Amino acid sequence: VSLRDEILEQPEAARRQLAASPEALAALAGRLSREPVDSIVIAARGTSDHAAIYAQYVFGVRHRLPVALATPSVLTVYGIAPRFERSLVIGISQSGASPDVGSVVAAARSQGAPTLAITNDPASPLGRSAEYLVELAAGPERAVAATKTYTTSLLAIARLSVVLGNGAPAELATVPAALEAALAGEAELAVESLAQDLAGEEREVVLARGFEYATARESALKLKELARVFADPYSAADFEHGPLALVEPGIPILAIAPGGLALGRFSPLLRRLRASGANLAVVSDEPSVLALARHAIPLPGGVPEWLRPIVSIVPLQLYAMHLARARGLDPERPVNIRKVTLTR
Amino acid sequence: VSLRDEILEQPEAARRQLAASPEALAALAGRLSREPVDSIVIAARGTSDHAAIYAQYVFGVRHRLPVALATPSVLTVYGIAPRFERSLVIGISQSGASPDVGSVVAAARSQGAPTLAITNDPASPLGRSAEYLVELAAGPERAVAATKTYTTSLLAIARLSVVLGNGAPAELATVPAALEAALAGEAELAVESLAQDLAGEEREVVLARGFEYATARESALKLKELARVFADPYSAADFEHGPLALVEPGIPILAIAPGGLALGRFSPLLRRLRASGANLAVVSDEPSVLALARHAIPLPGGVPEWLRPIVSIVPLQLYAMHLARARGLDPERPVNIRKVTLTR
Repeated sequence: VSLRDEILEQPEAARRQLAASPEALAALAGRLSREPVDSIVIAARGTSDHAAIYAQYVFGVRHRLPVALATPSVLTVYGIAPRFERSLVIGISQSGASPDVGSVVAAARSQGAPTLAITNDPASPLGRSAEYLVELAAGPERAVAATKTYTTSLLAIARLSVVLGNGAPAELATVPAALEAALAGEAELAVESLAQDLAGEEREVVLARGFEYATARESALKLKELARVFADPYSAADFEHGPLALVEPGIPILAIAPGGLALGRFSPLLRRLRASGANLAVVSDEPSVLALARHAIPLPGGVPEWLRPIVSIVPLQLYAMHLARARGLDPERPVNIRKVTLTR
Repeated sequence: VSLRDEILEQPEAARRQLAASPEALAALAGRLSREPVDSIVIAARGTSDHAAIYAQYVFGVRHRLPVALATPSVLTVYGIAPRFERSLVIGISQSGASPDVGSVVAAARSQGAPTLAITNDPASPLGRSAEYLVELAAGPERAVAATKTYTTSLLAIARLSVVLGNGAPAELATVPAALEAALAGEAELAVESLAQDLAGEEREVVLARGFEYATARESALKLKELARVFADPYSAADFEHGPLALVEPGIPILAIAPGGLALGRFSPLLRRLRASGANLAVVSDEPSVLALARHAIPLPGGVPEWLRPIVSIVPLQLYAMHLARARGLDPERPVNIRKVTLTR
């Protein structure tokens, strides 16, 4: 089993996720309807932290709930458990093994707050520490770089949004086919060509706005882990507050800019970047935005904006893999890192 | 007036901040004692976002309050105002002009939530939109790169923590002298030498843990804005979840690692990085940690861990300025960016 196999397995993993742990989701929704919460707190590290960023937009836009990303060090370094009254506390971890994530969830549960674990290993410390457990059902993930556990984590969050009363299961059911379309289309050829073009670059800016900000963050992490590139992810709005100073002719910029409400705010910056001579790669389902790019990476159309981050990361996983190879690295054996990282 | 003048003015700016807007802080504290909140939401962009990260640790560790960094796009792009019940909503902006930050605060106020603006311009849209206003009193900041408005923002947050009942004003009063000590010591010689050593590097990893994570973020932004270096900031814990793959012999790593509870978790990683041949610069008041570094950047001792981020950024502001010069750039005229950025 290789990284590539796991990337290709994502439509199937998504189908399994859609069928996983329905009772736990229903029970959590029941509790939240009896005891509403004012906010959500999420503890996660690495790739799972990007699923948490996705959740900030999902629960913010669709449920008007502020979502705080927990700073586990508050508990593990300074020994202080925040008060989790009227909060749903979610821990997300592929392995469920990192002590810092588990200890935030355990502290919340001991305060009586509703707690949810999203993990690929129900028997893990995180899986056992939460009151409610949604299994990723991604199947064993052997590659060090997380791929199918990321997209299933996002889908689990989207399912929670639906059981909380916004949207229909039929919308979710379109995701596996969209993943298939993303894997079957011309996107892989486009990212292979991009990887050849950028093999000698040590730095890359990754930009997105709104729901896709999670994709920018996750894509940059994959580029670091696999291709050892200094990939710097930004929300397009934050990028204008300073880091825009990095832009010069030829600088590689990867923009995740599919159609939707965020695109109207993003496209003036994209035009400005193109005018300043940046080497622009664009991931989108919008021909007019793809036309701005030197490297156009097409996405399948017809996916609702709020679900599209589950799909748009897929060509970027392939990109990180191809860029690693183009740089003479083995994407199956990233240096320095292990599958399970235990931080306290 | 130059960037360097504004960096050197910080002890004086801190003294002005300590005397600024005492009535507003007292009135806010009174309201919060009558109507307690369960969480804090902060809207900010760029440098001010790093003051918000500092606030996550201050209010988490010292008041057990979860702190959410607002994703202004939820409101400005998707048109959804989160429910801010039982939240204190804070907007931080040097200019107070960015519409996205102001609109989050205005939405919260219209819901009846307590709102606080922290800004250098009380007459700005942000200053006028909040119920309570703490003026930075940093004096006019003319350099594009924010320095004294950053340290005064942190100090304003620390003052709020004290009026909310944790700590004594006398503790805060030590900060201006500590800023003077940081500016008068050998730190500037050390960062000049570091800048000469790294002038040809296009990338740098910046690491910290706990309270100092804000310093890592802000320092990396200054390096991007002024020196146009791909400076990548990480919490030391998140760094182990993937980006550790970037480490190779000679890679420049800047670690902010002063004494305190966070150091015990951080120092094993520092020893590992040194053993792997990284070009390690360390900012610390602990001789044993400074001894690990090729470039030791000393901090004055005696500053409590929770207040030290106000001081530890100072040599790193000077470092970004010297690195810009060593790279042939003018730190007074960063490219592409302006003092006031308006994002929506």
